[in-house]
Amino acid sequence: MKKTKRSLWARGKSKIQNSLGIHLIADFWFGKNIENPKELEKFLILAAKKSGNIPLKFSYHKFNPHGLTGVLLLAESHITFHSWPEFGYLAIDIFSCGKKAKPEKALAYLKKILKPKKIEVKIFKRGKLK
Amino acid sequence: MKKTKRSLWARGKSKIQNSLGIHLIADFWFGKNIENPKELEKFLILAAKKSGNIPLKFSYHKFNPHGLTGVLLLAESHITFHSWPEFGYLAIDIFSCGKKAKPEKALAYLKKILKPKKIEVKIFKRGKLK
Repeated sequence: MKKTKRSLWARGKSKIQNSLGIHLIADFWFGKNIENPKELEKFLILAAKKSGNIPLKFSYHKFNPHGLTGVLLLAESHITFHSWPEFGYLAIDIFSCGKKAKPEKALAYLKKILKPKKIEVKIFKRGKLK
Repeated sequence: MKKTKRSLWARGKSKIQNSLGIHLIADFWFGKNIENPKELEKFLILAAKKSGNIPLKFSYHKFNPHGLTGVLLLAESHITFHSWPEFGYLAIDIFSCGKKAKPEKALAYLKKILKPKKIEVKIFKRGKLK
């Protein structure tokens, strides 16, 4: 199969991190702007750009009377968000495989802008290569 | 803030699982149909329905010459997929918060239909309630 820039990158990067991607899973509690899809779209696009990712498509659904579910697809995978305003909860996932991508920078930006009072983060390697 | 069906459900369910959602993270290796977005859309919608989830929106991007990134937004959160055909790799995430949702059934269906030769799965609670 033809080698692409992405696969050549992954082969190169795998020598360092031994995986195709990094996945950050974050639970934000009692932050701001978790119910405004237009604001979240803006913040997620900025978070992606600040972390070296390329935003592709934004898609969301707003529940009645409150709650959001949505995604910003990236050239390097995704940032998803799901909000439960009645619990002050926002689930954020940042899955990134870009050569220059630093998903922790996207997370740092979202923490700064959404100001959660409590946050729980897990980090995983995805697609571990031998 | 007004209690919704979703929040009333979450309060009820939290007594059992003590969290708002369940997140399955799966790395599929050397499976079938990982490069056909129309087939994947069909399989993901079926996986959602078989696991008690409600599909909302499907969105994807196809890389040139190969590789996919995409999502099926659910009323109960999401199923995302990212494929690296050159590595035989498909990253699948199933994040589900529905009362009747059983994300493990979606995963079982996708394993059956995509037939990965190797699979690694992690399971997490998201939005842990006190």
